[in-house]
Amino acid sequence: MAVNSPLPVAADLKPVKGIEIGFAEAGIKKPNRKDLLVMKLAEGATVSGVFTTNRFCAAPVQVSKANLAAMANGGKPVRALVVNTGNANAATGEQGLANAQATCAEVARLLGLEAQQVLPFSTGVILEQLPIEKLIAGLPAAVANLKLDNWFNAAEAIMTTDTQPKAASTTVTIGGHSVTMTGISKGAGMIKPNMATMLGYLAIDAKVAQPVLDELVKHAADHSFNSITIDGDTSTNDSFIVVATGAGSLAVDAATGAEYEALKEAVTDISRNLAQQIIRDGEGATKFMTITVEGGRNVEECRRIAYAVAHSPLVKTAFFASDPNLGRILAAIGYAGVDDLDTSKLDLYLDDVWVAKAGGRNPDYREEDGQRVMKQAEITVRATLGRGEASATVWTCDLSHDYVSINADYRS
Amino acid sequence: MAVNSPLPVAADLKPVKGIEIGFAEAGIKKPNRKDLLVMKLAEGATVSGVFTTNRFCAAPVQVSKANLAAMANGGKPVRALVVNTGNANAATGEQGLANAQATCAEVARLLGLEAQQVLPFSTGVILEQLPIEKLIAGLPAAVANLKLDNWFNAAEAIMTTDTQPKAASTTVTIGGHSVTMTGISKGAGMIKPNMATMLGYLAIDAKVAQPVLDELVKHAADHSFNSITIDGDTSTNDSFIVVATGAGSLAVDAATGAEYEALKEAVTDISRNLAQQIIRDGEGATKFMTITVEGGRNVEECRRIAYAVAHSPLVKTAFFASDPNLGRILAAIGYAGVDDLDTSKLDLYLDDVWVAKAGGRNPDYREEDGQRVMKQAEITVRATLGRGEASATVWTCDLSHDYVSINADYRS
Repeated sequence: MAVNSPLPVAADLKPVKGIEIGFAEAGIKKPNRKDLLVMKLAEGATVSGVFTTNRFCAAPVQVSKANLAAMANGGKPVRALVVNTGNANAATGEQGLANAQATCAEVARLLGLEAQQVLPFSTGVILEQLPIEKLIAGLPAAVANLKLDNWFNAAEAIMTTDTQPKAASTTVTIGGHSVTMTGISKGAGMIKPNMATMLGYLAIDAKVAQPVLDELVKHAADHSFNSITIDGDTSTNDSFIVVATGAGSLAVDAATGAEYEALKEAVTDISRNLAQQIIRDGEGATKFMTITVEGGRNVEECRRIAYAVAHSPLVKTAFFASDPNLGRILAAIGYAGVDDLDTSKLDLYLDDVWVAKAGGRNPDYREEDGQRVMKQAEITVRATLGRGEASATVWTCDLSHDYVSINADYRS
Repeated sequence: MAVNSPLPVAADLKPVKGIEIGFAEAGIKKPNRKDLLVMKLAEGATVSGVFTTNRFCAAPVQVSKANLAAMANGGKPVRALVVNTGNANAATGEQGLANAQATCAEVARLLGLEAQQVLPFSTGVILEQLPIEKLIAGLPAAVANLKLDNWFNAAEAIMTTDTQPKAASTTVTIGGHSVTMTGISKGAGMIKPNMATMLGYLAIDAKVAQPVLDELVKHAADHSFNSITIDGDTSTNDSFIVVATGAGSLAVDAATGAEYEALKEAVTDISRNLAQQIIRDGEGATKFMTITVEGGRNVEECRRIAYAVAHSPLVKTAFFASDPNLGRILAAIGYAGVDDLDTSKLDLYLDDVWVAKAGGRNPDYREEDGQRVMKQAEITVRATLGRGEASATVWTCDLSHDYVSINADYRS
């Protein structure tokens, strides 16, 4: 089903020195599927992450944030991550927090760490308590098969309604040092991707100082996972974590300079790849759409307009139908909330086809040209506002019958 | 398809003295269907309206607003309305404005008015020029059959993807005076009802001073058409117009007093009825949902949360599936953008069933109770925030397979 999504091949996912991965079938929601993942980090690794802003922030997110904060305040470094699918442990109150902490405690016990050195993550159904006994019973098996080359299994272990595992891997040379990066992601909600939990984990074998890693993660997230989600609209569990294991030869101590910039670009590229795989595997997706807004006064208004187009169910169904009903795009731009937008300066393009000119139909636009583009699996919508130099891009997919089927049946 | 929607019967739609209605089959988009409507108002009638805030405000909306403004500045009173379906005349530039004005000029010529005394309205496809010759050729037939009792035909003439005409009629007694009110509406877009054009026209035979009518319309719209739409998110053509013909015996000169309050309540009630009919006939709708948020600090934050729930595709598909996946409702409340919301004070009810308590699952909640409510055709979701006295209610419907089919096929 996924739109031109690269299916990861286990052999292509390079081990990253300094991070070992184990998985298990804990039967958290259903038997006989990988649903538990443990990642063990080498001594000296740094870890940074961005998390959901949802007020119903899930228990594991609360614990992960607290444990990262404790580390930042001089506590022991984070040395392990644990992820379960099948239950989000969200809106579960005190019991939920206790279960997330119990998970950390057991991972810590098995690995010889303190509970605070473990970050927990969950994804699945909300408002139901985590079956903590099953999870804990599954941990020894996950720890027993900790290996460097388990990335493909890791990608499979975090899937929920994803139709395929999502992973990417690359080796780049920065300042003469070889740097290997491998990551996995999951999440398949479609109309607003942010509403299905998105998880992303990226490991790099460079040594990156904590404040530098924090900068890197923020930049990479803004141009990847946060560009397939609307500001403030997030699921209860969204998380994106980057681990710099320090096992390689590159060391970056400051957020300046050519090596930092090269690393930032490489990390952002692979993060975008991981984020786009989520869209390509969007629930029921048949089209991959890039929405670019240019000529705005600032990035914020460009993003606002791009999101309005990307979230419009009428636009999405028109793309599903390959129908160049471009008025729906203009309508979405018009209600995006940029109150002083002068529509007479707005141009709109579908790939190379100039559709709307000065806020109206381009006199030279021919329906068959729009139709040709709409039939493609990958389409770029580009709007130019004619009021400044800023731009923004978001990625989304269409709205199909299968989206309704998948989400109407999710719990059954 | 519509959810418990009262099918209007022509005989139940009472004529309103002082307003005559004519219709025609102008073949604007398709032949052999009513697509043109003219309403002629008696001398002395007052007219007020609320319009879309979309920046791609359609040409007829621009002209209607200008003509109302001209009247407010001492110009001649509005004496006619003209509505076409089949083409929205939106994002059509100067040619679109010229076509809207030409429509007014021809109606004025036929009725012996000035063009400025006519308000034009359009609904249908965006970004295509109005076939003005067809519209103008149809006007004489519409004018020729102007009658008091054409309300049912009027309701049919403004339909687009509506599966049934929408209308309501009532007679109330206010201060000893009988007041008759009849209205029609159209609009069937579903996920965000505001994205399909909503039109509403209500006539009352009271005499209402212009500033009083302006107040009345604003209040009625806020509690009806604007409670099925998100702030700022509107189609290019949304309009709600109230005509007070002055042909009856009630006269209201000030926006105070018992008679004004009674009239306000009656106008709001019938407006809400007309607005709810749009939701009940939402594209593909199988459920009618009332979303009430109570205990907020102000109405704005209550509306924001109610809209987040009402617009969530995941919530909507769960209702379509009759699946009590209530975590999706909590997630939507959490990302609504009320940044200091204390989720530990939040309770959630499905009709009479107490689902979530203090932000978590109510220990007494039983899945079968939620299931029972979810199977109903009409469901109330009620959230209490525990932080104030304000409340708000919005109405919406579910997201079904048919929604995708209807919107994927709309233009074909």
